Amino acid sequence: MLYPKIPLAQTVIQLCKAKGVKHIIISPGSRNAPLTIGFSNDDYFKCYSIVDERCAAFFALGIAQQLQEPTAVVCTSGSALLNYYPAVAEAFYSDIPLIVLSADRPKHLIGVGDGQTINQKNVFENHILYAANLKLDLKDDDTNDVLEALPIFKNLENKVETLLGIKKTIQEYNEEVIDKAINKALLKNGPVHINVPFDEPLYDMVHELSVKPKPTIPENKTLQIEDAILGDCIKDWNAASKKMIVVGVNQPNQIEQRWLDALATDESVIVFTETTSNLHHEAFFPSIDKLIGPLKGEAFSKLQPDILLTFGGLIVSKKVKAFLRTYKPQQHWHIDLKKANDTFFSLSNVIETTANHFFSRFLPEIKPVKSDYHPYWKRVKESRGIKHNNYLKGVVFSDLKAFDAILGAIPNDTVLQLGNSSTVRYAQLFDLNKTLNVFCNRGTSGIDGCTSTAIGCAVANTKQTTLITGDLSFIYDSNALWNNYIPNNFRIIVINNQGGGIFRILPGHKNTENFNTYFETNHHLTAEHLCKMYGFKYEAVSDEKVLKTTLHSFYSEGDQPKLLEIFTPKNLNDEVLLNYFKFIG
Amino acid sequence: MLYPKIPLAQTVIQLCKAKGVKHIIISPGSRNAPLTIGFSNDDYFKCYSIVDERCAAFFALGIAQQLQEPTAVVCTSGSALLNYYPAVAEAFYSDIPLIVLSADRPKHLIGVGDGQTINQKNVFENHILYAANLKLDLKDDDTNDVLEALPIFKNLENKVETLLGIKKTIQEYNEEVIDKAINKALLKNGPVHINVPFDEPLYDMVHELSVKPKPTIPENKTLQIEDAILGDCIKDWNAASKKMIVVGVNQPNQIEQRWLDALATDESVIVFTETTSNLHHEAFFPSIDKLIGPLKGEAFSKLQPDILLTFGGLIVSKKVKAFLRTYKPQQHWHIDLKKANDTFFSLSNVIETTANHFFSRFLPEIKPVKSDYHPYWKRVKESRGIKHNNYLKGVVFSDLKAFDAILGAIPNDTVLQLGNSSTVRYAQLFDLNKTLNVFCNRGTSGIDGCTSTAIGCAVANTKQTTLITGDLSFIYDSNALWNNYIPNNFRIIVINNQGGGIFRILPGHKNTENFNTYFETNHHLTAEHLCKMYGFKYEAVSDEKVLKTTLHSFYSEGDQPKLLEIFTPKNLNDEVLLNYFKFIG
Repeated sequence: MLYPKIPLAQTVIQLCKAKGVKHIIISPGSRNAPLTIGFSNDDYFKCYSIVDERCAAFFALGIAQQLQEPTAVVCTSGSALLNYYPAVAEAFYSDIPLIVLSADRPKHLIGVGDGQTINQKNVFENHILYAANLKLDLKDDDTNDVLEALPIFKNLENKVETLLGIKKTIQEYNEEVIDKAINKALLKNGPVHINVPFDEPLYDMVHELSVKPKPTIPENKTLQIEDAILGDCIKDWNAASKKMIVVGVNQPNQIEQRWLDALATDESVIVFTETTSNLHHEAFFPSIDKLIGPLKGEAFSKLQPDILLTFGGLIVSKKVKAFLRTYKPQQHWHIDLKKANDTFFSLSNVIETTANHFFSRFLPEIKPVKSDYHPYWKRVKESRGIKHNNYLKGVVFSDLKAFDAILGAIPNDTVLQLGNSSTVRYAQLFDLNKTLNVFCNRGTSGIDGCTSTAIGCAVANTKQTTLITGDLSFIYDSNALWNNYIPNNFRIIVINNQGGGIFRILPGHKNTENFNTYFETNHHLTAEHLCKMYGFKYEAVSDEKVLKTTLHSFYSEGDQPKLLEIFTPKNLNDEVLLNYFKFIG
Repeated sequence: MLYPKIPLAQTVIQLCKAKGVKHIIISPGSRNAPLTIGFSNDDYFKCYSIVDERCAAFFALGIAQQLQEPTAVVCTSGSALLNYYPAVAEAFYSDIPLIVLSADRPKHLIGVGDGQTINQKNVFENHILYAANLKLDLKDDDTNDVLEALPIFKNLENKVETLLGIKKTIQEYNEEVIDKAINKALLKNGPVHINVPFDEPLYDMVHELSVKPKPTIPENKTLQIEDAILGDCIKDWNAASKKMIVVGVNQPNQIEQRWLDALATDESVIVFTETTSNLHHEAFFPSIDKLIGPLKGEAFSKLQPDILLTFGGLIVSKKVKAFLRTYKPQQHWHIDLKKANDTFFSLSNVIETTANHFFSRFLPEIKPVKSDYHPYWKRVKESRGIKHNNYLKGVVFSDLKAFDAILGAIPNDTVLQLGNSSTVRYAQLFDLNKTLNVFCNRGTSGIDGCTSTAIGCAVANTKQTTLITGDLSFIYDSNALWNNYIPNNFRIIVINNQGGGIFRILPGHKNTENFNTYFETNHHLTAEHLCKMYGFKYEAVSDEKVLKTTLHSFYSEGDQPKLLEIFTPKNLNDEVLLNYFKFIG
């Protein structure tokens, strides 16, 4: 086998291999040549070449999101690295393991006016789990810098010495921080940055490794919940007659069915599941906004829980946030191994474990409590469901109507990726096909990488992937299609309402020139030319009947991926949605 | 007139106006509505709407680069801001005044799981002149944070108190840091970040301003050079027989002609001008690489200067860097108001003033020194020029040949924007039309925003703008064309060599599958579909004869901007270039 000659490149690559980092997304460059040569010459790795680093990082994020394992991106020095930042922040808030490997110049060539050179050290500081700043040698070193990290001192034998007197070579130091970085990504599920300085020559290869880095095994955090805390939870829960569970972003098939069944049979419990929660039970309450949207005054008090239990990631529904921030629960417990957002300004108890472990200890001790809480809201839910269907029957063709048709047509057992932000909000109004796995970049809720993420997902998944997205987010991430790995069964549905339709729903100043230009951002672009450029089969529809027939053929097999563009009337969409909430109430 | 109701938005906008920040590039969003409303309702400002923030910031940079005045970008909260980073870094290293205005949530809504929310404070820390983190009120405040900045303390009267006992309201604090930020951009020519938290309601308007912020006048730094330093310079210069001047990135018409003439008449002085230096004199040495490229051993010693004087920004030529790092001058003086890179590891004297001021004091005291330094290298230059022409006559159609045709066809008195990095390097081999103003994003030397920058330049300039770029950089920044402000006389020339042609010139491993995929990044894309999508007139050529006739009509007037795509043979380009350096030696 061929390896890069530079030991530091070998070290990075061998440690990635030892820890199961398999998918490597490489953007072209010269400074990163040692890494590119090493990864691409070892069949253990699945390498991808993607030029635009913004797309490359979101693509990697899509892979990591599906496989639930760290994925690496590799770029050259300079501003290339900065283009990763949107995806790094998304990974940070969505708990997705992403390993950023940036090549850098040796320290003496930074800040002297060389090309493609910026200050890469800790550049993602606000949104990174850990940054490993590797060293070339002690000449190249900044003692303070090393001190910060270990802490270690420099001495005369090209070694560094820690406060405890342990001597380390630069090689040992580098191994230690690389090891630590990858372990962080593995254990804490988030982005880490490994900055790797390389000196020329960059392209030399050898047949034997000159380093044998020793990976450490990441120590898994204990999952145990303390008996006293558990006891308090059980006591309070059994005493309360209104308990609400809200589930945010959650991987499919994560929660055991028996726990869902147990929760479903308790009259004092309401389970609100977001579309991105991937949790389903007929007794649960999906489409939260549909239930809460039309509520007023007294009804809110009726819905106000004594205890709120949450797990999963970020919550899409603005309505449930506004409701619970005003009608606060007496207690809010959040279950999470890593962090707990005080989303409703009433967080009282952070349960540091997994939901499954918590339920396995907690639910066997729970006694169903007689209550009208679930029965009452079940009736409201059913009433909303009927009115929802009636409204959709009568309404004109629009975003809402298009979603109804689309969500009914997506094949069973496939993956659905939703764009931000109208798309995921519209989807939340429907009771989704339970066999779908649903994802959306809700970490930062950006429109910047939805398509790239969906393509990464499609590449990593054996199931078919559909992306539904808006026109602005689609064009924003159009470089996502500059990708040689898109499977033929990948499908994109663009809802084109000629601008940012969501701004018509917000309390702006509609139909002024300023509104049209700076908020809605009117345009007359379509996805057609991009489809021709990047080899997608393109179809466009603008009415319900054609949409339905087209959706039918859209999922037939073909020899290229397909994109369906649905044109909806921008001046009607907001009215249709606002009337919807009036109608279903 | 209509103003946003929120006083903080009024404050930001009024201070921008008071300080002459006129061009405002707005990306759509809701959190930034108060700023969008305020800027777009005041005719003082020229507002632009651009969706992709990466492009928006480079577009703003193109405007600021041309007008030499601060330009502002405005975005919503969340990852939107991170997409500005590549342009922020470019502005930082290219000394271009760019004001980033990011809307943010109030502090109590950050880190609680709200959508479009990241940690925006100091997010560009490695590459920003100053970051003003505005405050909503003291409730919302973090005392440590304020302490850092002023320092000031919180007290009971909703005031903050500095260590000197001066009481300030939050309004005063905000005014002070906004004022400071804009002054920094003005005086130091670089990017600053103003992060502006807004609470709802965001869309309310009023007819009267509720604040009257008082701008301070930025204090200009003294330009005087100390007599003692000047005296030493004069003495050393007059005693040396080999003096070299190297000029990097430099605005057109910046250096007075009489100083250029004075330098030109001294036999002991060689002036190397880069393409981006915008300096011309027949006695100077443009196309540095053409002169240095073929040199060996003894010749380098002959060229080695006693004194090296540099001014202007970053240097493109790798060959001059490699040469001067090995054959170091005894002294290296750099003239700059702001910073001095030790590019050649021999910096001995930083002259903190403008080149004009320095020359006005220095050159009148200089005595021309008898020397063969200039005459000898002038003969070499002339010989290279003849061989250059002969080589081009005989060589096959290729990147080099295409540049020869293009550079000869660009109309007089227009602006030329060059992409990174083959493009700018090829251009350096030619003696450019002296009436052109030449620009290139050499701050970070990224390919990420060349087209957006060129479009910003075209919008801000009364002269016609041509961009020459490569296929990878063109597609990378294809969203640049998603822009409603492109003038019809704007011209793009894409040299399409089906991948990153520059990698064939570097010492890689050509023609292996890995090389083609991960380094050269082969593709078969063209600019045609993007031209159709965005309303550019498209023409494609792939031989010399058609290129020449097409270039002729390419500059005729039309009712849409035009793009010319030149296909060159990727397997010949590197050989043609390498043989060029052999031939001209």
